[in-house]
Order: sequence, then structure tokens, then C-alpha cells
Amino acid sequence: MNKRAEPEDVDFLVESDVLNRLKPKMREAAAKIRRAILDGRSILVRHHADADGICAGIAMEKAVLPLVEKVNQSNDAQYYYFKRSPSKAPFYELEDVVKDLSFALEDQERHGQKLPLIVLLDNGSTEEDITALMQAKIYDIEVVVIDHHFPGELLTTEEKDGEIVGATVAVDDYVDVHVNPYLVGGDSQLTAGALATEVAHIINPEIKDTIKHLPAIAALGDHADCDEAHQYLDIAEEKGFDKEHATKVAECIDFEAYFLRFMNGRGIMDTIVGIDNVDKHEKMIEALYKEYQKRVDTQLKAALPNIEKTQFDNGIYFNLMDVEKFAHKFTFPAPGKTCGFVHDKVVKEVGEDKPIITLGHGPDFGVIRATDAVNEMFGFSVNTLVSELAIDIPSAGIDGGGHECAGSIKYLEGLGDEVLDDIVDKVKNMEKI
Amino acid sequence: MNKRAEPEDVDFLVESDVLNRLKPKMREAAAKIRRAILDGRSILVRHHADADGICAGIAMEKAVLPLVEKVNQSNDAQYYYFKRSPSKAPFYELEDVVKDLSFALEDQERHGQKLPLIVLLDNGSTEEDITALMQAKIYDIEVVVIDHHFPGELLTTEEKDGEIVGATVAVDDYVDVHVNPYLVGGDSQLTAGALATEVAHIINPEIKDTIKHLPAIAALGDHADCDEAHQYLDIAEEKGFDKEHATKVAECIDFEAYFLRFMNGRGIMDTIVGIDNVDKHEKMIEALYKEYQKRVDTQLKAALPNIEKTQFDNGIYFNLMDVEKFAHKFTFPAPGKTCGFVHDKVVKEVGEDKPIITLGHGPDFGVIRATDAVNEMFGFSVNTLVSELAIDIPSAGIDGGGHECAGSIKYLEGLGDEVLDDIVDKVKNMEKI
Amino acid sequence: MNKRAEPEDVDFLVESDVLNRLKPKMREAAAKIRRAILDGRSILVRHHADADGICAGIAMEKAVLPLVEKVNQSNDAQYYYFKRSPSKAPFYELEDVVKDLSFALEDQERHGQKLPLIVLLDNGSTEEDITALMQAKIYDIEVVVIDHHFPGELLTTEEKDGEIVGATVAVDDYVDVHVNPYLVGGDSQLTAGALATEVAHIINPEIKDTIKHLPAIAALGDHADCDEAHQYLDIAEEKGFDKEHATKVAECIDFEAYFLRFMNGRGIMDTIVGIDNVDKHEKMIEALYKEYQKRVDTQLKAALPNIEKTQFDNGIYFNLMDVEKFAHKFTFPAPGKTCGFVHDKVVKEVGEDKPIITLGHGPDFGVIRATDAVNEMFGFSVNTLVSELAIDIPSAGIDGGGHECAGSIKYLEGLGDEVLDDIVDKVKNMEKI
Repeated sequence: MNKRAEPEDVDFLVESDVLNRLKPKMREAAAKIRRAILDGRSILVRHHADADGICAGIAMEKAVLPLVEKVNQSNDAQYYYFKRSPSKAPFYELEDVVKDLSFALEDQERHGQKLPLIVLLDNGSTEEDITALMQAKIYDIEVVVIDHHFPGELLTTEEKDGEIVGATVAVDDYVDVHVNPYLVGGDSQLTAGALATEVAHIINPEIKDTIKHLPAIAALGDHADCDEAHQYLDIAEEKGFDKEHATKVAECIDFEAYFLRFMNGRGIMDTIVGIDNVDKHEKMIEALYKEYQKRVDTQLKAALPNIEKTQFDNGIYFNLMDVEKFAHKFTFPAPGKTCGFVHDKVVKEVGEDKPIITLGHGPDFGVIRATDAVNEMFGFSVNTLVSELAIDIPSAGIDGGGHECAGSIKYLEGLGDEVLDDIVDKVKNMEKI
Repeated sequence: MNKRAEPEDVDFLVESDVLNRLKPKMREAAAKIRRAILDGRSILVRHHADADGICAGIAMEKAVLPLVEKVNQSNDAQYYYFKRSPSKAPFYELEDVVKDLSFALEDQERHGQKLPLIVLLDNGSTEEDITALMQAKIYDIEVVVIDHHFPGELLTTEEKDGEIVGATVAVDDYVDVHVNPYLVGGDSQLTAGALATEVAHIINPEIKDTIKHLPAIAALGDHADCDEAHQYLDIAEEKGFDKEHATKVAECIDFEAYFLRFMNGRGIMDTIVGIDNVDKHEKMIEALYKEYQKRVDTQLKAALPNIEKTQFDNGIYFNLMDVEKFAHKFTFPAPGKTCGFVHDKVVKEVGEDKPIITLGHGPDFGVIRATDAVNEMFGFSVNTLVSELAIDIPSAGIDGGGHECAGSIKYLEGLGDEVLDDIVDKVKNMEKI
Repeated sequence: MNKRAEPEDVDFLVESDVLNRLKPKMREAAAKIRRAILDGRSILVRHHADADGICAGIAMEKAVLPLVEKVNQSNDAQYYYFKRSPSKAPFYELEDVVKDLSFALEDQERHGQKLPLIVLLDNGSTEEDITALMQAKIYDIEVVVIDHHFPGELLTTEEKDGEIVGATVAVDDYVDVHVNPYLVGGDSQLTAGALATEVAHIINPEIKDTIKHLPAIAALGDHADCDEAHQYLDIAEEKGFDKEHATKVAECIDFEAYFLRFMNGRGIMDTIVGIDNVDKHEKMIEALYKEYQKRVDTQLKAALPNIEKTQFDNGIYFNLMDVEKFAHKFTFPAPGKTCGFVHDKVVKEVGEDKPIITLGHGPDFGVIRATDAVNEMFGFSVNTLVSELAIDIPSAGIDGGGHECAGSIKYLEGLGDEVLDDIVDKVKNMEKI
């Protein structure tokens, strides 16, 4: 490693306007991380515990560890100077930040370590992250965010040739470098796994071949379907990860992450993504995928006979199920994911082009999935639905949201029946646009 | 540190008859702790995880750590010879003692460490503590208790000039030194935070200025309103912690403790109480308090529209709410605390001098808050209510209690409706005394 | 320790045809474990967290630790080269294996340690273990299973003089040595505690006197009543553990294990089983047993008044209780165990020779206990009942099983009433055989 924080100039793995516009931010992120390594600060990576977030975390890990080992002599250096932890929530929770700060402050006091650089992957962009970030900033801890979640309203924007080339959002007051496609006119189709892999590549160009298949897995995990995702799939295919296999890998990551909980499971995950123990990779995927399918089948066998299916006069196919009462609890797949599997199953039967909505609910939450047709024909959006419900039943403590065709809603258990009735009513009375 | 366990004679921070009568016990506690440090035993502090208990724990920590470092040479000594852990329950739980003993016995076997001295703060005085303490005593581990919870019936009392100067209670068979105001005719108004700070000051007089504001925070956290509490407030105010600010600090401690769970969060807590990182204290409190208020508001917004308010013929204002069905779950503030906020809100509207009772319940528990007026006008006491319910519905597995005007009750879910009906009935039919 | 893996030839503690037929497997298990110690691999013991599993784990621990210390010089060797962890489930869960593999792979990478030998005790024989074992095998980790649970259908059998002397079952594809009485025509009456103690004795004959009382405790914990169990009781009695005391010890192990959760609690457990701190053993058992009884009594006091007792026309006494609604939650004894205590209580009143069935249920599970008379008179078996229910109500996601007269059943909450009604119906209409 040359001893400058400033990274070399490397090309992205794919052609992408969004990436090109994000390049300055990404190089800045890479420089911050390289600077921290050279400074002898530790790198504390937090990432969402799904396939996208885990791919992002692994890419960063593979870039940083060799540099840490070059800079520090001790055998054990990589464990002192690099930490990677999954976060269950899709944001930086207070439970996580108090743990991170407690350990960081103890390491400082006890071992004379410097405070770490925090790197949030597939996490960190939204208003829900602010309270946690604020606590980190109080200790002057630097924070780099590489995320693709919608960061909320753009507060300022800088344009060039009619394109947004830079913008600021609420979280930017608490973040040192913020890499997010929404800041340059892109969207969540460009995954955190892709962004983090590209930044990792800038940080340490030598690990390109090791990590270049990760964005494809991330994209399949997050159902991303943009042009960049297809280019990444081609790269992965060259390395032996065709679409079918990469999809299996993404599902195995999700499955294993469920059991690993707050552990990063580095050794096992390296096998699953095919970076280490490459000879064991195929066997591992085969074993895990078989069990994954078995568990999904068991859950579907429980759920499917207990769905209420209706077709309303407006043509919408509506599927309602109680995922707490009619699915196995405390097991994989969890209620929310089960709703997705049920929806996919029904869509396969009824037809992808039909307007289909699936609502899986518990006593105080609902998970909503819809086909694109519902959005196109009726202008349906989960966010709009949630907003309307909050107005209709103000005492129900409604919260939630998501994308047009997928999202979730939380409400008070005591008003659950009213909320569900209102949702059914709204769906029934939607009119074609 | 002079090498004698016997502490120097120092004055209390405040004037107090109760403290004066407790002085011999407090000096004995201080001597036990100093002796353990000189012996090379580690000090294992367990304290309740609320503002009072945490202030008590921090005071003890600040007194002990410098002495540990003087006695032991190693850099790391303070981490080997001092441990501080919050306990969620207001007593020494079996989950806690088996963990403490397991680690202590392993440290003994593995590192040749001596068994520790256990110091219980804001915990340890009641019959519920006995089973845990018994297990510690089996290994001849010394235990010091500094607590202000009602320790149950006085079994023996020693009087002098008409004042109780010493008493024994059930737990004393299992405790080496027991500091508790009830043992000298005092009560729970003198907080564990105050008692522990005074003992910490005796142990190590040099840290007086560091910790002297902690009793005020503890008092505000525990709503203590005695003469000593007011003197402590004056001391804190001199140090820049006026009542408003100290109240905020107490609330921020509670808030952060919720997320820290079983971690002591030393570095963060030092910032919150303004002992370390003093320059960051204000910013931290501002950030946390803002979020604290936001969360309380969200919870109240959910709860308030769903309260059943009645005024009975006897004049009592009765508020009933289902805190599981009409409050957000698994978030701060938890159901019990939410009931308190609701009660305070209603009291503000109706009037502090009115007889108001608030009952927040789940399927198998209830939390009760009442104004002093209910006690004064109707002789109401939560303890009496619980006893009567246990007689009325013997099969409901009723347990609980508290103070006159605040407490909780547990019962079997299957008999929940009967228990609630009976409570309503009793409140409705209470007669003025 | 001589430096050969091949163990010395020692006699079993008791006379037993089943043990004699299992001897080659047991010696092979012992050799694998000795070989791993000599190789410098660590031994990772996982055992079920009940009295039987814990006795098995302790026996193995006492045999292995002295050998580890002889082979390795470091003071701390026993902590690096031996780990013992309880598993809550009666099989090797995915949560457990991913944790074990994560740590093992990190130790390999970080400290250059070899991958461990996994030893599963009172766990590991059934089809439910396969997914976890498969993951371990992918890393070529050797696995020894010593278990007495029914391992499923025998796939191949080898006979000699009309006796099964060897058999294979589903799990054998993933296990290196499998010790289980069912593989030689025996059954679960020979406990894992007994089998592990005998293997431990083969591994290290010098610790015979230390561990020889453990099989008796294991047998009482598992209600085993075979000839070997009686011989083990005689051995224990010679060492001061008569039936009454050994039963208390078994109950205290269960009680303390509830609070230890995922910790092995080595120091405390050594006191409880009377291996270390022998002078404190009596005091510890007295203290724990008193508290154990108190908690069982509290739970029974809650449960007993809320049982629905019926006698059907076919003569069967049927006891139905909702163990979630009419028992204290999140406390010892847990719902399942509570059902057992209730059943025992009723049997004592009605008569051991009477046909009595007790069904304790929650919203999505049931625990079933029956007297032998029900099996003898009506051909009742929990396994048959579960199979029939699964056919009757295919959409209820029914799973479960057990022995003839004890077992459990899981179902979807949404179909709970139908399942319970069907059970009652079936019991009511059972006919004498």
C-alpha cells in the first residue's frame, strides 16, 4: 500500500451514469477509509443483515483487511483494526450505536486505541438513522455512509447539464461522506452491495477479482433490475456465478444470516459467497439451499390453505392472511418474508400481469405486496395507503411505508380490526386511472 | 492510598439524622470495600438499571477505580479488579447471580483470581434477593448491600433515645454489611444514589467534587422529595446542575439505559452524568433529551385517545387503558412507564389535588398510579388492593405491590378480566375515611 | 497419558448386554477423542441442557481436561482446547452450529488453531440434527455423537446370534462415530449420561471415582427405570448419593440450568453434582432444592384450580389446562414442565393404575402426559395421536411426537381450537383393546 490516503484512479466494474456522477463522493469515501487505516484508527463496519448488506460488508472487509495487515505488524491486527457487524433493522439502531460507542470508548481508555471510523453499508441514509449518528458525532467519530435507501426530501441540489450531480438530505449534518444514488438523481436499483464493492475496489484495486461477483448477488437479493445489475450479472457469470446460482447464493445468505443473528459469521459467509474455501462452496450452497427450500415449503404448506382470496368488482385479486396465526412462528422464513412467498405463489397462478394485492398481517402489523399492474392500473402505492390510513384512523398510531408495490405498516393492536377493514375497503373501492 | 482498610473520618455532603444513624454501617461498608481492594479481590458492583441505581454505580466506580490502580501495577488492572453491571429487575435475580458466580469461579480457576466482593446498589435488601444471595454465600463471597427499598418486617431493633439506631431484617442472614435507611427508622426517600455516593466519598475522599452532583440526579429520577434531596440539589446546582438540567440528565440516563440493556456503557454514561468528556455533556443531553421527548410524545399520542375515563359517584377519576393493545410495543417507553406518563398527563388536566387513579394493564399485569388525594381521602394503598384481590380471587395467582400510590400487580392471563372487574369494583365502592 | 489414541481396555461400571454390544462403538468414540487431544485439536462438547445431558457433559469434561493439560503446557490450555456448551433444543440447532463454526473458523484464522472435534451428547442422533451436522462436515470437522434418542428407522442392521449388533440410521452419513443404544437393539432407557460416563471412563480410567455417580443422577432426571439404571443407583448410593438425594440433585441441575441458559456454569454445576467444592455440595442442594420446590408450588397453586377435569364414558380421566393463560410465564417451571407436575399431582390423587391423560396447551402447542394404563388398556400413543391429527386437519401444520405416554404437538394458532376439539374427541372415543 502506498502511504497516501488519496486512492488511485480505477475504472468502475460497469458502465453507469449514476456511478459516474457519484464518483467524487465514492473516491472521498475511499480516501476517508484509507486515511483511517493509515492513522491506526479501526474500521467499524455496520451493515443490514440481508444479502445486499452482507455482500456490501464482505466487499469492504476484503478490501480493508490486507491494508490493515500491511500497516500494522501484529498478527492479530485485523481483529483489532477491523470489525464487521450485521444490524437487524434497516437503519442504525440505538441498540447498535450504544454498543459500538461503549466498546470504542472502552478500547480507547483501556488499550489506548483511537476512536474508530464508522462505515454504514445498506444503512445510514434515512431520518431514522439520525439519533444514532448524532451520538457518534458527539464523540467526533467520523462516519461514512454507503447506502441506497431513499434518504428523504432533497434539501439542496446542484445541477450540471440538467442532471443532479449533488444534493443534500437531512442525514448529511451527521455524516462525513454520504454515498447514495438518490443524491445524484439515481435510485435504489443500484444496490448498496454494488456501491460498496465499487468503493472497496477503489480502496484496494488488488482485490478486484475476489469481489467482482458480489454486486450480482446483491442485486438478485434485492430484486434490482437496472442496467447496472445486468452488467454485474455478466461479470459474475464469467466467474461461474450464473443467474440461477447467484440467486441461490443470495437466498442462502439470507437463510444463514437468520441463524447468525448478531454474528458476522465471516468464515461461513466467505464459503457461501465463494471467496474462501472455494472447494467447499458448491457443497455448502447445495446443503443450505435444500434446507432453505424445505423450510419455505413447510411454511407455505401451512400458510396457503389459510389464505382468504377474493376478487373485487374492480378486478383486483386480494389475498388476506394472518401470518401469526397461520404460519409457524420463531422460525425461518419469518412472517414478513412468508407474505412475500405467498404473494409470489399466487402471482404465478393468477398471472403476473393481473392486479394482485397480498396482505399478510399480525395483530399489530401488516406486510403488503402488489403486482406492478395494481400500480399501473390503479395508481396504487403503499406509501399513499399508509398516509391515508393515518388520516382515517388517527388514534391507531399508524407508521410504515416502503415502495409502490411492497411495504409494511405498523399499528396499535387494539385498533387492528379497524385498520384491516379500512385497508380492505380502500382496495375494494380503488378506481382505474 | 494509605494501606489501611479503615477509612478516614469524613463529613457527609449534607446534614441528615438518618445518615448520622447509618454512619457506622456506612463506614463498615467502606472498610469492607477498601479491604477487598487491598486484598486483591475484585469488586463486582450490581445495580438497578434506572437513574438512581446507575448514579449509585457510577459513584462507587469513581471511588474504587483510582484505588485499584494504586494497589495494582498492571495497566489493565481496573478491568480485572472492578466490574459494574446493571440488573433489569429491582432485585438480585438468579440469572444475574449464576452469571456472576460462573465468571468468578472461572476467573479463580483459570487466572488464580480471588473470589470477588459483591456490592449491590439500589438492590439486595428484600426477601426476593435471598435466593441469589444464598448462592453467593455458599462460596463464602462477601456481600455489601446499599439499598433503600423496603426490606420487609424488622426482626430485631436497637433503640437509643427513642430512635431506632439499628435493626435486622430477613436478608441480613446472607449479607455482610447492609446499609438501608429503614434499618435506622428512615425510608426510601433517601435514595441509593445518595447512600452510595456518601459511602464512595468515605472510601475515597479525593473524588468528592467528581461525584457530589450524583445524589441530586438520583433523587429526581426516583421522585424523592425529602430534606436531604433538597440539600443535594443545592450542591448540584453549584456545580451547574440545576433542577431542570438534573431532571433531564435523569431522564436521559433512563432512556440510554433502555438501549444499553446489560452493558454498563461506562464511557457514554460518564458523558451523560457530566463526569468525563465534560465538553460533550451539554450536546449529549440536548441530543438525547430531544429524542427522549419525541418517543414519549409518540407513545402518548398512541395511548391518550384510547383511555377510558370515568368519574365514579364517590368522586374518584378513574383512567383505564390497555397498555399492550394501545401502546407501541418493544420500544421506549415500555408499557409500565407509559402508564406513568399517561397518569401525569391526566393529573395535569384534572388537578393534582383531585382523587385520580390510573390503571394501565396488559393481559397478565397491571400498573397502578394514584394521586396522594386518593390515599388521603380514601385510605387507598396499592399494597392493600393487591392483598384484597388475592383473597377475592385466590385462583388468579396474584402477586405484586409497591407504595401507597404507585405499584404493580401480576396475575394469570386466564383470570385477567375478573381481576380487572374486581379492581374497578373496589375503586368504585371505596368510601371516604 | 500414554501417547496412543487407542484406549486401554477397562470394564464398564455395570453389567449390561446393550453396553457390551455397543462396546466397539464406544471404544471408537473414545479413540477419536483421545486422538483429537493428541493432535492438538480442541474438543467442543454440545449437550442437551437437562440433567441427563449435563451429567453427560460433565463426565466428558472431567475425563478430557486432565489429558488436555498433560498434552499441552500452557496454564490456560484447558480453556483453549475444551469447550462445553448446553443446547436448549434436544437436537443440534442451526443457531448452535453457525456459532460453533464461526468461532472455530475464526480461531483457525486468527490463532492458527486446528478445527475442533465436535462431541454431541444427549443430542445428535435424529433427522433434525442432519442440517447442522452437514454444515460441520463441509469443513471436514469430525463429529462424535453419544445419544439415546430414537434415531429413526434402522436402514441397515447387522445381527449376530439373533441380536442386532450394529445398525445404521439417517444421521450416520454425517457422523464419524455414533453411539446409541437403538443401534444395538437397546432403547432410550440407557441414558446419554450413562453412555457418556462410560466413554469418559474409557478415555481416562483415572477419573472413575470422580464421575461414577453421574449415571444415577442422569437416570433419575430422565425417569429411566432399566436394570442398568438400578445398578448405577447402587454405585451412587455407595458414594453418598442415595435415590432421594440423587433425585434432588437432578432437579437442582434442571433448575439451575434454566437460569444459566447458554452458559455451562462449570463451577456451580461441579458443586451441584458434588465433584468440586464437595464441602459446599450439601448446602448448595439444600438452598436450591428449597427454592425449586417453592417455585413448583407457586406454579401448581396457579395451575391446579384452573384444570378442567372430566371422566369420559370409556373410563379415561382427562385433564385439560391452558398452560399459558393459567400458569405464570417466563419463569421456572416453564409451561411444558408445569404440565408434567400437574399430571403427576392428579395421578397421585386418582391412582397410578388408572387411565389418565393430561393435556396442557398454549395457543399453538400442546404437551401430553398419560399413565401406562392408557397405553395398555387403549393402545394409546402420542406418536399415533399426532399422525392421526395431521391427517384429520391437514391445514393445521401439525408436527410433534414423543413416546407412548409423553410427548408434544405443535400446530398453527389459527386452527388451535379445531385441533384441541379433535384431541378431546379422539380421547373420548378411544376403545379398549
